[in-house]
Amino acid sequence: MSFESREVHLVERPTGLPTPDHFSIVEREVGDPNSGEVVVKNRFMSVDPAMRPRLSNGQQPVGEVMSGGALGIVVESRNSEFKEGDTVLNGMGFREYFTSDGRGLTPLDPKGFPETLYMHVLGTTGFTAWGGMLIVGELKEGENVFVSTAAGAVGLVAAQIAKIKNCYVIGSTSTEEKCKWLRDTLGLDVAINYNEGVLRKNLKAAAPNGIDVYFDNVGGSHLDAALPRMNVLGRIPICGMISAYNNFGAISEGVTTLSNMIYQRVTMRGFVVYDFEDKREQFLDDMRGWLSTGAMKYEETIFDGIESAADALIGLFTGANIGKMLVKLD
Amino acid sequence: MSFESREVHLVERPTGLPTPDHFSIVEREVGDPNSGEVVVKNRFMSVDPAMRPRLSNGQQPVGEVMSGGALGIVVESRNSEFKEGDTVLNGMGFREYFTSDGRGLTPLDPKGFPETLYMHVLGTTGFTAWGGMLIVGELKEGENVFVSTAAGAVGLVAAQIAKIKNCYVIGSTSTEEKCKWLRDTLGLDVAINYNEGVLRKNLKAAAPNGIDVYFDNVGGSHLDAALPRMNVLGRIPICGMISAYNNFGAISEGVTTLSNMIYQRVTMRGFVVYDFEDKREQFLDDMRGWLSTGAMKYEETIFDGIESAADALIGLFTGANIGKMLVKLD
Repeated sequence: MSFESREVHLVERPTGLPTPDHFSIVEREVGDPNSGEVVVKNRFMSVDPAMRPRLSNGQQPVGEVMSGGALGIVVESRNSEFKEGDTVLNGMGFREYFTSDGRGLTPLDPKGFPETLYMHVLGTTGFTAWGGMLIVGELKEGENVFVSTAAGAVGLVAAQIAKIKNCYVIGSTSTEEKCKWLRDTLGLDVAINYNEGVLRKNLKAAAPNGIDVYFDNVGGSHLDAALPRMNVLGRIPICGMISAYNNFGAISEGVTTLSNMIYQRVTMRGFVVYDFEDKREQFLDDMRGWLSTGAMKYEETIFDGIESAADALIGLFTGANIGKMLVKLD
Repeated sequence: MSFESREVHLVERPTGLPTPDHFSIVEREVGDPNSGEVVVKNRFMSVDPAMRPRLSNGQQPVGEVMSGGALGIVVESRNSEFKEGDTVLNGMGFREYFTSDGRGLTPLDPKGFPETLYMHVLGTTGFTAWGGMLIVGELKEGENVFVSTAAGAVGLVAAQIAKIKNCYVIGSTSTEEKCKWLRDTLGLDVAINYNEGVLRKNLKAAAPNGIDVYFDNVGGSHLDAALPRMNVLGRIPICGMISAYNNFGAISEGVTTLSNMIYQRVTMRGFVVYDFEDKREQFLDDMRGWLSTGAMKYEETIFDGIESAADALIGLFTGANIGKMLVKLD
């Protein structure tokens, strides 16, 4: 038996916002597994802002499948460690089927939670936000917190962790609809639509007691607006700089207010999720607890079919998602 | 007995580089001390880049004496804690004589070192560099280090501490003459004249093994050039941002390369010297040792007379000094 699979390839490196023309869908036949191998059918593909810099910096090869996280099911197995029907997390990216010798496949025991949650709140984006707020950001009870792109997959977790810690929380997002969701569903104290008015002024008005922790997913004008509001010994975990991702190799938005770091003795620190790997169980315990009590809410934006993958990726930069962006296959 | 004293007042807040017209010299008579008071005659006044932001941010009042560090001698005393001839460090700024009740006067025991060294290598600028490199920068033996304005009072100490720790050290400065001094006298591995060529390219060529610690006195284009060169887990102590000081309240040079902090997990931290106050004795022990063995060299640029104080301050921003800028009074 063999499988008709489709894959999304990068065909040209974008210099600005990617367009569908930068990608192509390639058909491929995936044959029976050899001894020791399995065939996996992906059910969901993860779509993440961090995929964007790889398109320009060379980490994503041209003419190959877009790499990324996915959740699939084993449909044929000649490997004793996997049986048909097993759900596996994998990093095989934008493709429907693939063959694997089992390396890089992580069997998923969802422990009663929906499986896709392991692609966000119980997976990389949740772990990123948890480590960024609690370890890098050293968040304390009752502090003043600002989270940029707070309706995104990482931001919504960061913002809710701060609410769980009884902080005053300001979030920014791209539409009035998402502002309402941040206030009404997540319980944020203030939601700022960064496409309306002057962010710097709106943030100043929203932060009468300054900012102790700014969880930065954006950089550029967001960071420029946040720095003058930082309190003494404030922390800025730098999770992402989505404002720069479509300017790779060119001039990105300049940050002009860094001198505020000096007298306020602000610490700004870049981090990546694997810095926290030794604390994964602690993260999972926290997050399962918060999900069980309803203290942690989430949202998924699901595009249908592999042919929508490029649009889903582009949509991350045009504000198309609330919560985790996923592509559902089949 | 009374003393004819002259003081430098701020008469107008500069918006860019200050000019002599922003200051005036005011004559004043300082009378005999009352009971419990002393009269101090300043011998040297400290001229520091950090004075510049205070001219614009309101910390330095208009129509009053320019505040700052100084070294003086007690010329009349009616305070039992001080006797005539005592040398005292003080924060009374740009003036020749003043009356004091003794608060804010620190008697100086130079322990065999020239007294003016307590205004720089054994004082605030040395302590700033020591804390910035060893505490904030967590400098380790043999690392790769970049120090901006390495021929300035703070920079020369930071750069030499790195050499003492067997680091590879790159320094930037504003003239070929100062480059030569950095290489030949301080023993830096590379000196870059930031007024020649493209700093970003020159720094890239100078740092084949990247940068572990960037000691930043400048911000702006210096920081922009350093960020892409930072190694994994690199540290950037932010001591000053002299490039921004003459742009206060306006747009300063934007920093566009901050996203390099993410994957390299760089930490950038602002600091001020009083963060280290509990370690002052440790600093003095280190520095006296280094001075005694000749491992730590220094330079002073001395302007003569209170009428030169404004020029000395302006000169800090036009590259007029090697080492510590001082004004000698009489």
